[in-house]
Formats: sequence, structure tokens, C-alpha cells
Amino acid sequence: MPTLTSSQLANLSEALLEAAGATKEEAKTVSRLLTESNLAGVDSHGVFPNLLNYMKGLREGTIKPNAKIEIIREQESVLLINGNWGFGQVICTKTMQMAIEKAKQTGACAAGIFNCNHIGRLSDYSKMALQHDIIAFVAVNSDPGVAPYGGTRAVLATSPISFAIPANAEKPIVVDFATSVAAEGKVRAALYKGTQLPEGWILDSQGRPSTNPADLYEPPLPPAQVKLAGALLPAGGHKGFGLALVVEALAGALTGTGCDGEITYGMTNGVFILVLNIGSFVPSESFKERIDKLIRSVKSSPTAPGFTQILIPGEPEYKEEEKRSKTGIPIPDAAWKTLENACKEYGLDIAEILRR
Amino acid sequence: MPTLTSSQLANLSEALLEAAGATKEEAKTVSRLLTESNLAGVDSHGVFPNLLNYMKGLREGTIKPNAKIEIIREQESVLLINGNWGFGQVICTKTMQMAIEKAKQTGACAAGIFNCNHIGRLSDYSKMALQHDIIAFVAVNSDPGVAPYGGTRAVLATSPISFAIPANAEKPIVVDFATSVAAEGKVRAALYKGTQLPEGWILDSQGRPSTNPADLYEPPLPPAQVKLAGALLPAGGHKGFGLALVVEALAGALTGTGCDGEITYGMTNGVFILVLNIGSFVPSESFKERIDKLIRSVKSSPTAPGFTQILIPGEPEYKEEEKRSKTGIPIPDAAWKTLENACKEYGLDIAEILRR
Repeated sequence: MPTLTSSQLANLSEALLEAAGATKEEAKTVSRLLTESNLAGVDSHGVFPNLLNYMKGLREGTIKPNAKIEIIREQESVLLINGNWGFGQVICTKTMQMAIEKAKQTGACAAGIFNCNHIGRLSDYSKMALQHDIIAFVAVNSDPGVAPYGGTRAVLATSPISFAIPANAEKPIVVDFATSVAAEGKVRAALYKGTQLPEGWILDSQGRPSTNPADLYEPPLPPAQVKLAGALLPAGGHKGFGLALVVEALAGALTGTGCDGEITYGMTNGVFILVLNIGSFVPSESFKERIDKLIRSVKSSPTAPGFTQILIPGEPEYKEEEKRSKTGIPIPDAAWKTLENACKEYGLDIAEILRR
Repeated sequence: MPTLTSSQLANLSEALLEAAGATKEEAKTVSRLLTESNLAGVDSHGVFPNLLNYMKGLREGTIKPNAKIEIIREQESVLLINGNWGFGQVICTKTMQMAIEKAKQTGACAAGIFNCNHIGRLSDYSKMALQHDIIAFVAVNSDPGVAPYGGTRAVLATSPISFAIPANAEKPIVVDFATSVAAEGKVRAALYKGTQLPEGWILDSQGRPSTNPADLYEPPLPPAQVKLAGALLPAGGHKGFGLALVVEALAGALTGTGCDGEITYGMTNGVFILVLNIGSFVPSESFKERIDKLIRSVKSSPTAPGFTQILIPGEPEYKEEEKRSKTGIPIPDAAWKTLENACKEYGLDIAEILRR
């Protein structure tokens, strides 16, 4: 298994995206965010497998290179953005920047995005607000994969949400999770590893509870494209179900992207962003000191059996980032093979790219 | 067990609150909301036991009758309100009204409230926005009762959240839940009934998982005032924990109310409100039709074993409301006794009040 530094991996990703038709700026933004996910240990949102999906999207025309975003509606504290099917990362980064500027003026801004491709890891965008002393919330919907509480058919998206909350001396609180029990990527990981799932994650195509990851997917396995036969279950029963409905309403209906059967393509994301300017409420410094105090109090709780420490949301990723910054990013052999092949296909000298 | 109509119960509550020192307007607002909770079957947030707590608050001076709310900070899309320790219901109703008016102007408004008493059921306020074609979110923090994920000490509040999302022909989506596995009231209900709890709800004073509701409380039992010895657990493990931290940040730190050890009185609520004007994003009618379609699609999913139908968040309460509007609100004998005693204490003729 080869190991790359984050700048090597980013350079490789950039070269491939540009070769596949992305502009330099797009390739830079997308590759930086994908690589940061790998660095943080969130490989499901990293260069592999996403880069190849994006290259496929460029080839098939579902991702439009050099797309310009359009402001469709604008008010003091609202933005509605048509992404014109560019890279989700580029659209969402620009929208978050604009939302932050508006929140500095009016105290709060809510933004919706439609015609948008896969944006990747939500916390990439919520974290952008931290340095501005702004609290950010991001939610996306996508094609259906999750059954309602009490039901068996996949009607709702995994509907992930992220919150970023700045602290002072402590690391910020960065929440980022699917409102289903598990993200689809974790089921796929178990499928590839050949392990069983914990109970309560999925239903099979007949609506029966299953611990076999293969039961989530349409054959043939492993799936070249993700097509679900079964359904994921909502986290915490009716609570995750309620949150998923809220995300469908905010990221699907309020943005005009659509919900439920309206999203048919697995790379589509409806995006909802909310940013709140802390200083409009209370002095930022006192807010951040309160968050420090909260974090320390939480971390000083005695641990439960099976735990050696209490981790704040976002902390596992910060820890892994520190580690991989030193040790490099391990690239599984299968992923390395596909990257090598892609370079060959586009006539790129992978050894030269890694020396840059 | 006596049964009262909702207007009888509201009249009784009003008379007692006025007798205990509330103004006519306060007594009306508080009694209407408490009675609506009983009507919807959410007795934990109804007249009993809350009315007696509020009367105690008036006597002890923790609830200040005729308190005026003060706008401390105001921006295009932000309100920070000092409740001056009036009735939570009165403060929160007025703040929600102001937030709705601001959202109509700028598209969105976020409001924080500090120095605020118990506001009761969160959906009472989120639902106020529905008729304006506005989406509302409400969250409150309070004194600590929930352990962090992986920890055993009660550091976080039960941190309930509510979302109200308007529909067109269908009933609206009204989400309202604690981010802990169970609200404290449900553990207390089990204690009174003498039943065991499901696994995963609470830890005892030693941090050990327990199914005995008594293990949550400081003796003597039943508790006259709720004092926790153990801790509730967060819903969905790290997910409910993450949400509780967000609620502490929004309702505690951003409002200036404080988090963790800073709230020492069980009737204190830090309140965070967010409202979004649908028409600022997309035409309200098309939004609401999309929500109708989503609701119908969710409800038409085949049901899982053990379920006969799929209920949308808010639907159980609407159903119970319809039922109790016809059959009346059952008053448990113990609660009736305390209401009779309270009337006697204040020289009120309960029979006359019920005839009004």
C-alpha cells in the first residue's frame, strides 16, 4: 500500500481532473477538499473513490466544467443559487463565502443551492465560517436511501447535517453526520471487507432487518454504481426520521431541488446553508470562552465502560489529520491501481506528478 | 378520573394563575398553551404538573409577574431578548411574533432569549410560524441532565428541538423531541407507574446502565423537586450528543444564558429561535405542494413489522387533539386533588369556574 503526502495526493487529483476537462481553479478546489478528507481519515469522502466518479461525470456531461453560478433570489439574509451543474465543491464554497459576507451585514443568512453536483464532506463548508466567528449549519439531500420510521421503502435521503461552532483555546465543535443510523459508504465498506453489519442498520429488499451488507444493493455485487434494493434505517427511530424530513424540506423543497422521487441521479445534492454572526448576539470572545468551558466540562466527565476518553465532535478528525500530516495518507492497493490506470489513460506521468 | 373540556381546564388554570399573582394576559397565554398540550395528549407539558410549579415560581419570586421583555440587540435579522424572568410562554410568544415580522422583511431571523423561565412545549412556538408560510426552528437548553457520549456525568441539558414545516392539503410536519434518548418526564412517569425502563435510557449515580427509573433521582422518592443522581443518555450515541452540544451553543452560549454548570435552576430556559420565510426562496405554494407530496410518499411506504401505519412527526398529537376535543381531557385523580386544594387555598369556587 503506497503512502502519499497530502500535497502529492492533491497534485495527482488536480492533474487528473484537469486532464478530464476541469478548469485549473475547479481542479484545485475539488482536489484540496478531497485530500483534506483523506488527511482527516474520512476516506469515504476523499480522492478515492470520488475522483473517478467526478471524472466520469465530466465525461458524461453531468458535471459541467467552468459552470458559472447564478444568484436567482437575493434578499438581506437570503441567497438562492443556481449551480448550473458545476462541481458541487466549487458552487458550495462560493455560496458559503457569499453567505458569510451577508451574515456579517445583517447577523444571519440562509442560502439554498439547486442544480448542484455532489459537494462531498459537509464540514468542509461549515468549517469555513469558524475563522469569521460565525456559526454555520449545512444540510444536503440526495437520491432516496432511507426508510421512514415504521416503513420499509427508501423514500428519504441519508440527509447529512453539519454544524461548526468556534471555540477559543479548544478545537472547535464540528458536528457532521448522516441522519440515518449509518451512511451508505459504511455499508459498502463492510461489503468489500466481507464483514457483517451491526443490527438495526438496514432492511433488505423485502423490508426485513438484515446484517448482510449485500442485502442493501441491487445485484451484481460489488456494485459498479450504487443502486439500492433495500433501505437504510433512520438514526434513533422517529428522531432521525424527523430530522431527515426537515433536511428534505430545507435542502430539497426550499431550494427547489426537489425531494423523494424528484432526485434520480446519485450525484445530485440540494444544499441548505445557514450562518449566524456570533457578534450580533453576544461578544464573540465571551461566546468562545463559554464553548471552551463547555468542552472542558464535557471532556472531564468520568468515562463509561468501554471508553478511555470523551471525544468532542470533530476531534477524531483533527487527531487523524495531525497523525497523517506526519505519516502520510495510505492509499489502498486497489485505489492506487485505478489512479495509475487513469493517469495512463490520460497520458499523465504519475512519477513526475508525485515529484512536483 | 374527572374529564374536563379544554375551555374548562383553561379557565381553571387561568383563575389559579391570576389568584397566584399573574396578570390576566399572562394567565390567558400560559393557560392556553398548557391546555393545548393536554389536548394533544402531551400531558407532561400540560396543566398538571406545570401549573403548580408556576404558582410556586410566582410565590417564590422566580417568575416575575408583569415582567416586560427588553430588546437588547437588534439587527436586520437578529434579535436578542432579555425576558426579565417573566413567564417563558409570554416571552417566547412575543419573541416569535417579532422574529416572524423580521423574517418577512429580510427572509430570515434568528432570535435569542435569556433570563427566561420554562417555556413548555417547543412546538407551541414553532407552529406559530406555519400560518405565515414560514419555517421555524426552536431549541432550548436548561439545567444539566444528560451524559456526553462515552461519559457518565450529567453535563448537557436534554436540549429539545422543534421544527415546524408548512404543508398544503396535508397536516404540517411538526418535529419536537429531546436530543436525549428519553425526556426526563418519561422516566418520572415510569417511576410513578412502577415500571422498568427500556435499556439504554439512563445511567445510575455510579455511571452504570440501569433500567430502574428510581436510579435517575436523588432520594427521597418520589422527588418533590427533580434532582438527578444519575444521567440520561444521548439519543443515537454520538449523534444526539452532537446535537445537544449544538443546542448548548445556540440556546446557551449565543443567547448569553450560559451552559453546563451556569444554569442551576430547573425552570430556566435559554431559547434560540430561527425563522425562514419560504417565499424568499421559492413560491410558497410550490413549496407546500412538494411537502404534501413528500408526506404522501412517506406514508405510502409499506409498513415494517410491528407498525400498522407510518405517522408523520406531529401527527400523533393532531390525532389525539381531535379525539380529546370530543371526549374531553382526562384529569388523573392525584392531579385533580392538587387542583382542588389549590383552589381552596386561594378561596376559588372550583364548581363555579367550571360552569363559566
